[in-house]
Amino acid sequence: MNQYCVGIDVGGTSVKCGIFTYNGVLLDKWEVMTRKAENGKYILPDVAEELKKHLDEKTISYEDIAGIGIGVPGPVEPDGHVRVAVNLGWKDIYPARIMRELMGGRIPCAVGNDANVAALGEMWQGGGRGFQNMMMVTLGTGVGGGLILNGKIVAGAHGAGAEIGHIHVREVEGERCACGGMGCLEQVASATGIVKEAERFLRMFKEPSSLRIYGKALTAKIVCDAAKEGDQLAYLSLDLSMRSLGIVLAQVSMVADPEIFVIGGGVSRAGSFLLDLIRKHYEEYTPILEKKAELVLATLGNDAGIYGCARLMLEKD
Amino acid sequence: MNQYCVGIDVGGTSVKCGIFTYNGVLLDKWEVMTRKAENGKYILPDVAEELKKHLDEKTISYEDIAGIGIGVPGPVEPDGHVRVAVNLGWKDIYPARIMRELMGGRIPCAVGNDANVAALGEMWQGGGRGFQNMMMVTLGTGVGGGLILNGKIVAGAHGAGAEIGHIHVREVEGERCACGGMGCLEQVASATGIVKEAERFLRMFKEPSSLRIYGKALTAKIVCDAAKEGDQLAYLSLDLSMRSLGIVLAQVSMVADPEIFVIGGGVSRAGSFLLDLIRKHYEEYTPILEKKAELVLATLGNDAGIYGCARLMLEKD
Repeated sequence: MNQYCVGIDVGGTSVKCGIFTYNGVLLDKWEVMTRKAENGKYILPDVAEELKKHLDEKTISYEDIAGIGIGVPGPVEPDGHVRVAVNLGWKDIYPARIMRELMGGRIPCAVGNDANVAALGEMWQGGGRGFQNMMMVTLGTGVGGGLILNGKIVAGAHGAGAEIGHIHVREVEGERCACGGMGCLEQVASATGIVKEAERFLRMFKEPSSLRIYGKALTAKIVCDAAKEGDQLAYLSLDLSMRSLGIVLAQVSMVADPEIFVIGGGVSRAGSFLLDLIRKHYEEYTPILEKKAELVLATLGNDAGIYGCARLMLEKD
Repeated sequence: MNQYCVGIDVGGTSVKCGIFTYNGVLLDKWEVMTRKAENGKYILPDVAEELKKHLDEKTISYEDIAGIGIGVPGPVEPDGHVRVAVNLGWKDIYPARIMRELMGGRIPCAVGNDANVAALGEMWQGGGRGFQNMMMVTLGTGVGGGLILNGKIVAGAHGAGAEIGHIHVREVEGERCACGGMGCLEQVASATGIVKEAERFLRMFKEPSSLRIYGKALTAKIVCDAAKEGDQLAYLSLDLSMRSLGIVLAQVSMVADPEIFVIGGGVSRAGSFLLDLIRKHYEEYTPILEKKAELVLATLGNDAGIYGCARLMLEKD
């Protein structure tokens, strides 16, 4: 019994679902549209309905399920309370309790922040496999983080654990970040930040660059590709973006000192080229560390969340 | 039985020792000179000899001692190995094993880094009492830190946990830190850093200041006192030093998100005036936090170490 666990990664557009064996093999995965109407009250019932079908199809009985883990895009309080998840319309709900009831009260459920569970997923079956102390960094539209120490998520006393996207890292920054701060890492090293930085370079310097033809259509991928291909302006601006990230990872080492950093998110598709840039700066700002943390790429892509949600249930103690 | 625990805080000049009841009452304390000759091989035997005398005097039998905790000025590996403690001359030793043997093999012993055990002490009976997630910041000759999450010390995978003194915080810094880096927090916000910052202000600005008469005799205490008394140059330079500390504490919140920061060390004697300066900047750089961490002063002074060492033994699980 308890041979399976279920991961439910709730996102603003779709809910990713997966059934796993207890040792991390993904048996089945599917997506459910996120119905945000009426404060997102249909989201979990929709998921439960589909989940029941998939369990029936696979003839998996409820008794054989260790639990259902749910990832939420927003802060989750230690008791599982979600005060607000803006992308879902949720306010003041306990998603684990609701899911438990929807499944007939027979399956244990737990809830976690989506960035944190993604970190757990990468530690379980991804780039951080074999480590107990790691930080996952997600370079997407924003910069997210998930910190795991001694195998446990560090959610933080105010839900700000591993919110590294909002670390103040740049003194000379004229624009405000969405959080209200100025000079946040996210403003420099997210996909959006990488583009902004490149645009700044294009304005500041007159040198020719393959980036100039794109205008408003410039993306982080284009900047990374051009930098790889030797475009000087693209390289210098990306290098500066990754310097900020390197400095922040060095700070993380001087606070929580993880064994490994796992870099994921869309931007990380730039691969080892990007990793080398980050590592160069990380090492420059950790002279005190004789042995440095490792830097690796995430391997689970968009599935990290469902892996982590499933693992959440095996983590319970 | 197990009514007592012993704390041994090994420093470069003296070893502080204390006998505690299991619930944190300090019954007896004394100091032993640190004999650094022959790679510090006499330090622990000297301590053990004195400890036996004190236990005899108090007629405390070994069976009634839960354990002896030892604090070491240097990194301690997870297995208790101390690769090097420069201030003691120690190289490649296991202090807890040695102490255990010296006491007849009957008392459990453990070892921890001195900054970390001081944090544990403040959590047990000092400024952080009642909290399980805290960071202690020691503003002395350097800037030290000790991070505790869920009641446990975060030592870090490479012994760099809470080494916040070496977080890169200032981009425009011409001098090198002892760690090899540039722009470390310690260069700005330690007692030494506060003096350097004030000296810089005195050179940069021509305004009158009560600090000018001191020349080479300027100390952090003089800077803090003058700032309190309204000396503009002293205030502005101290404010800038504490801004760097505030930024770093904000970073810590965005990584480990503790409930409370406990500020200790010689500089913290400047009291609530200093605390208010730090808090002002900390709050400015945590706009994302609706609820902020508390900032309080340490209360145990130089005894924090022995409290924490003693507590180290009760922490074992």
